Amino acid sequence: MNVSRIRKQWDFIKAIDALKSVQRKTYLIDGSRFENSAEHSWAVSTLAFLLGEYASDEVDINKVIVMLLIHDIVEIDAGDTLLYDDVLTESKKAREEQAAKRLFSILPEDQTIQLRSVWEEFESEETAESVFAAGIDRLIPLIHNISTNGRAWRELGIHYDQIMAKNTKIAKANPILWEVIKTDIDELFAPDFTTL
Amino acid sequence: MNVSRIRKQWDFIKAIDALKSVQRKTYLIDGSRFENSAEHSWAVSTLAFLLGEYASDEVDINKVIVMLLIHDIVEIDAGDTLLYDDVLTESKKAREEQAAKRLFSILPEDQTIQLRSVWEEFESEETAESVFAAGIDRLIPLIHNISTNGRAWRELGIHYDQIMAKNTKIAKANPILWEVIKTDIDELFAPDFTTL
Repeated sequence: MNVSRIRKQWDFIKAIDALKSVQRKTYLIDGSRFENSAEHSWAVSTLAFLLGEYASDEVDINKVIVMLLIHDIVEIDAGDTLLYDDVLTESKKAREEQAAKRLFSILPEDQTIQLRSVWEEFESEETAESVFAAGIDRLIPLIHNISTNGRAWRELGIHYDQIMAKNTKIAKANPILWEVIKTDIDELFAPDFTTL
Repeated sequence: MNVSRIRKQWDFIKAIDALKSVQRKTYLIDGSRFENSAEHSWAVSTLAFLLGEYASDEVDINKVIVMLLIHDIVEIDAGDTLLYDDVLTESKKAREEQAAKRLFSILPEDQTIQLRSVWEEFESEETAESVFAAGIDRLIPLIHNISTNGRAWRELGIHYDQIMAKNTKIAKANPILWEVIKTDIDELFAPDFTTL
């Protein structure tokens, strides 16, 4: 065990503290303010643990949890990209790539490689774990939006069709979870299913 | 799969969103504000993952991570109890017990039992996982305090001896981690090792 290794690990935990200052466009359940990406990372990891039973048999839920703990770290440099902002989404990949390079390299080399690989797997959405993680990551802001009577959607002018188009990943994680949340969204947007 | 089960799980995730409004007496690394308990839960879970290699062989690090994700949920009702506040610490157990009863019972019954048991194990500090989790939970505010030049300790009038007395749990998790952080604390409190 060497001290310089420990120092690098602590330097990383200090660097990623900045995730607590990255604001998302999702209100807290009590509506008092927007949440930040660190709080979101806690909530979504906890939700994945709670909903593990809805994942397919091949999913290693512990891997999903670690994936969700680190999935937004790149936002420290790249910022939070609103799902519905197609212009920002275009440059998202390049911005996050740069961020991943800088941030993960603070760690000892073996952990740089390890975390980078977990993050890339999350981004790829090609494995059972990343499909489930991506679905839960989409689900949680919907729960917040419904609980706050669609406030963020109202303020951002988000259309029903946009929500439908951008959240099909939830159905890929688990069709019943999607069915239940879709019922709530439909109720909120009835009767004309356009904007709030 | 039944919908009422899913609803209970979502009700729980909505209820514990209030952890984002529980303020701790630890400054963010950039000193801009105090952190909240939800952000802390994210950071400490992530740190446990990063430092897993320092745990003894019998430790299931995935269990440690889940433990740390949920360890502070009781603070939603019970508030954050400052480690160095001996008066509040006396009533902590009773307050947190009430909180655990209310909050975990929002979940489906099997998960009420499961989360309650994970929380009780964390509190007991009798298993390899809870000893490691408790140590990392103590370590992270020390990293913050040292990075902010002891600002919270200064403002709260915390003595060197108090820090030494209350943080020996880190040595139980791993003696080298304690040795390294103690070097930093000693440097900060030199030359007289009293208050800052």
